[in-house]
Amino acid sequence: MLQKPSIPKGTRDFLPADVARRSYVIDIIKTQFERFGFLPIETPAMEKSTTLQGKYGEEGDRLMFNILNSGEKVKKADVDALTKNNLGLFTKSISEKALRYDLTVPFARFVVQHQNELMFPFKRYQVQSVWRADRPQRGRFQEFTQCDADVVGAVSPVLEAECIQLFDAVFSELHLKDATIRINHRGILSGITTYLGAPKRIVDFTVTLDKIDKIGASGVFDELRKKGFGDDSLSKLYPLLELSGAIDVQLDTLESILTDQPVALEGIAHLRDVLRFLSPLHVSKLAFDLTLARGLNYYTGIIFEIVPPKDVAMGSIGAGGRYDDLTALFGLKDMHGLGISFGLDRLCMVLEELDLFPKTVQQSVNIVVLHFGDTFLQDLVPHIAKWRKAGLRVLTYPTSHKLKKQMQFANQSGAPWALFYGEQEKKEGFLAIKNMANGTTEKIKIDAFAASKFIS
Amino acid sequence: MLQKPSIPKGTRDFLPADVARRSYVIDIIKTQFERFGFLPIETPAMEKSTTLQGKYGEEGDRLMFNILNSGEKVKKADVDALTKNNLGLFTKSISEKALRYDLTVPFARFVVQHQNELMFPFKRYQVQSVWRADRPQRGRFQEFTQCDADVVGAVSPVLEAECIQLFDAVFSELHLKDATIRINHRGILSGITTYLGAPKRIVDFTVTLDKIDKIGASGVFDELRKKGFGDDSLSKLYPLLELSGAIDVQLDTLESILTDQPVALEGIAHLRDVLRFLSPLHVSKLAFDLTLARGLNYYTGIIFEIVPPKDVAMGSIGAGGRYDDLTALFGLKDMHGLGISFGLDRLCMVLEELDLFPKTVQQSVNIVVLHFGDTFLQDLVPHIAKWRKAGLRVLTYPTSHKLKKQMQFANQSGAPWALFYGEQEKKEGFLAIKNMANGTTEKIKIDAFAASKFIS
Repeated sequence: MLQKPSIPKGTRDFLPADVARRSYVIDIIKTQFERFGFLPIETPAMEKSTTLQGKYGEEGDRLMFNILNSGEKVKKADVDALTKNNLGLFTKSISEKALRYDLTVPFARFVVQHQNELMFPFKRYQVQSVWRADRPQRGRFQEFTQCDADVVGAVSPVLEAECIQLFDAVFSELHLKDATIRINHRGILSGITTYLGAPKRIVDFTVTLDKIDKIGASGVFDELRKKGFGDDSLSKLYPLLELSGAIDVQLDTLESILTDQPVALEGIAHLRDVLRFLSPLHVSKLAFDLTLARGLNYYTGIIFEIVPPKDVAMGSIGAGGRYDDLTALFGLKDMHGLGISFGLDRLCMVLEELDLFPKTVQQSVNIVVLHFGDTFLQDLVPHIAKWRKAGLRVLTYPTSHKLKKQMQFANQSGAPWALFYGEQEKKEGFLAIKNMANGTTEKIKIDAFAASKFIS
Repeated sequence: MLQKPSIPKGTRDFLPADVARRSYVIDIIKTQFERFGFLPIETPAMEKSTTLQGKYGEEGDRLMFNILNSGEKVKKADVDALTKNNLGLFTKSISEKALRYDLTVPFARFVVQHQNELMFPFKRYQVQSVWRADRPQRGRFQEFTQCDADVVGAVSPVLEAECIQLFDAVFSELHLKDATIRINHRGILSGITTYLGAPKRIVDFTVTLDKIDKIGASGVFDELRKKGFGDDSLSKLYPLLELSGAIDVQLDTLESILTDQPVALEGIAHLRDVLRFLSPLHVSKLAFDLTLARGLNYYTGIIFEIVPPKDVAMGSIGAGGRYDDLTALFGLKDMHGLGISFGLDRLCMVLEELDLFPKTVQQSVNIVVLHFGDTFLQDLVPHIAKWRKAGLRVLTYPTSHKLKKQMQFANQSGAPWALFYGEQEKKEGFLAIKNMANGTTEKIKIDAFAASKFIS
C-alpha cells in the first residue's frame, strides 16, 4: 500500500493562486528596492558550514539544516564523538555544508569575496528562501522567503531616511496603511543602561524591556527587580517609559533626562538628522519606541521594526538596522552597513487576513478555446499562434469532451472568455466568443479578432 | 588568520549583471509558459527522502543531497550499518529529507497530494532550483535552475504540438534562431529493436544509438557488435541510419521499412498527428532524429531534445516527452503526462557565447543624484520621492565626497544621467542634469523635471 504523499513539516506547496499572491508582493517589494537604487544579487542555497557556523549564536547553530556529505565521504563519521555525545563534532565529521539561515551573513561573505568586483557604496537586494529547523507554528515555517535590502560602505543619515521611505513606499503600494515603523537607536539604549547605573548590562536590561508589549510596564519592573536592578535604577527608568507625543517631543524629553550620557545624546542627534530628511514627507506611521531592542548582538546604530496593524495577531513583518562590523567576520574591516528586511510569508498572511490582495491578482488564462474536433482546432492554429504572440494567454482544451464538461473547465479556470469554433462557426467564418461573467456571446470574424481587446 | 571566504564547489554567486541576464531569460520563458495556459506552482526545496529515493535510479540516489536530521535526532545514527559499510542504511538513520533533485518527481507528488484542489487537464509551470552532487564541469553545477512546463490528465496531439510551438516561441524571443528541436518516439525505437530481432534489448540498443553524435555510425556498429548484435541485425539497421530529407519523407521511408512493426507504426502515426497541427506554422528547426533516445526509463511516447547551434559546444538546453504513469509512483494511476524543460544555466551560457543578450538587459539605476551637502539634498527629498513614485530608479549618493569620486561612481553605476544640485543650482532654482553618454548637461526647473523623460 502506497503512503499518501506529503511534504516535510514546516514546508509548503504553493498552488497557482498562492504563487500569484506571493508574486504580487514580491514584485512590489522588488520594484521599490530598485527605485531606491538597490541591485539584485543571489547566493547559493548551500554555504560552507564554516561560513555559517557560530554566526547566529548557539540557537542558530542548533536550528541550521546541515547537508550530509555525499557518497563515500560519510564513512568518515566520527563515531567516537557520537558515543561521547559530542553531536557538534559528529555533525562536523559528516557535513561540510548547510542551508542558508538568513540573507545577511551570506551577503557579508559575498561582499568580502567579491569586493574587487563591486562599487561602493554597494546597494544590493536579495529575495531568496532561508531554512531553519524551528518548531513550525502560525507564521513560522522551516522554509520561508526573506526580502532584504542592504547598503554597505557608507554612513549617512540619508541612507537611514531612505530605509524608512522604502518601508513606507512598500506598505503604501500594498495598501497596508496601518503598519507602524518603529525606530530606536542602540546608543540610546546603551546610554539608558549607563544612566540606570548598570553600564555593562545592556543585554540583560533590553531583553526585559523588549517584553513590555507582552508583560506591561509593571511586568518589566518586576523582572528587572528580580534581575537585581535596584529601586534607584527603577525610579530613574519610570519617566522614560512614560514618554509620549510626537517623536521630536519625545527626543527633547529624552535629551533633557539623559543629558550626562554622551552615547545616548549621539544616538538622539543621529535620529534627529534622519528625521530632518523625512520632514518634508508624510511618513504617517513612524514611531519612536524606546523599548525596541532587537538584534543588539549585531545592530550598532538605528534599529527598525515594522509591526502590522493592531487587530492582526502577528509578530514583526519587517525589520532592520545599522551594523558596523559585519564583514569583519570574513576579514574585511570598517565596512559599515545598513539593512532592512521584509518577511514575505508573514506579509502575505497579513494581507490575506485584511483582505488586501486585489481581485485581479489571481493568475489565469485570458481565453479557453473549446474543442469541437481536431480539424476545427487545426484551422485555428495559425490564429492562436498570432494571438499568443500578441500577448494573449490562450488555453486550448485538448480533447473533444462533451461541451458541458469543457464549459465546466472553462468556468473553473477563471478565464473571462471562452471561444467556440465548430461546424456552424466554420461555415460562417466566425468565432463565437462567450463572456464568462455575464453569459453573453458575440460573433467576430476570425481575421477581425483583435487579441488586445480580450487581454484583461 | 581568517580564511578567504568561498562557496561550495559547483555553486555560484550571481552579481547584479548576472541576475539581470538570468531574469531576462526567466521572464521570457515564464511569459511564454503563461501564453500557452500554464500556471505557476512552487514546491519545497526539501522533500521527504521517501518521496525522492528510488525515483531516479541508482545514480540519482547517489547524487542526492541529503539533509541531516536536526538536534538530538542524529543520536539515532546506525553505527552498525556504517561499520558494515551499508552507507544507504546509515544515511537513512540520520536523514529523512533531501534536496529537490528535479522538478518532475515533486510535481508528481504535488498532483497526487492536491488532486482534489486541481482542475484537469492541469497545466503547471515551475521555475526553481534543483541540487545534484555531481562532479562540477562546464555547464554542470551542483545547484541549477530548471524551468518546467507539464500538462497532466489529457492525451492529445494538440498538446505535443503546443510543446513544440512553445520551444519555438521561447527560442524566437531569445533570438536563438539556430537551436534545433529534435523529436522522436519511443514506439519507433521499440519497433526498431523488435525489427532488429532483439525485442527486449531496447535500452541496450538505444544507449549505444544515442552516442552516434560522438562516435559516428561506424562506432555505433562496432559497439552493437560487441554487445552481441549480429550482422543480420546490423545490416537491417544500416538503412535506418541513412534516413534524410523532410520529416514527412523520413517518416514515409520508416513506415515502409517497419511495415510489420505495429508499435512503430503507431508512433509514426502519432508524430504525423502532431505535425498536422504544426503544418500551418513555420517551425524552422524541427528535426526528426531516430537516434534520440533520452529518458527511456520514463518517457512512453514522443521525446524532445533541444540542441544549441552547432558552433556552441554545449549539450542539450531543453528536453521533454510524454510519460504515462508518473503519478502512479504515488498511487494515482492513469494520469497521462507530457512535459518540457529548459535548462536556465546552460541557456544563459549559450546566449552569452553567442552575444545574444540585449544591451538593455543590464539592470541599473536611471539617475544618480550627486551630493553637495545634506542641506541641498534635503531640498530635493520631496522631489526625489515624487520621481520614484513615478517609476524612476534614483540612487542618491549618500555623502559629500569629492565630486571626482562621485562622478567616478556615477560612471561605473551605468546610470544614463547624473543630477547636480548645489549652491549655484539652488540659487537659480534649477537642476543640472548630465547625460553620461555624451557628456552634455541641461538645466531644468525643479518643478518642470518630468521623471518619465529620464526613464530609459
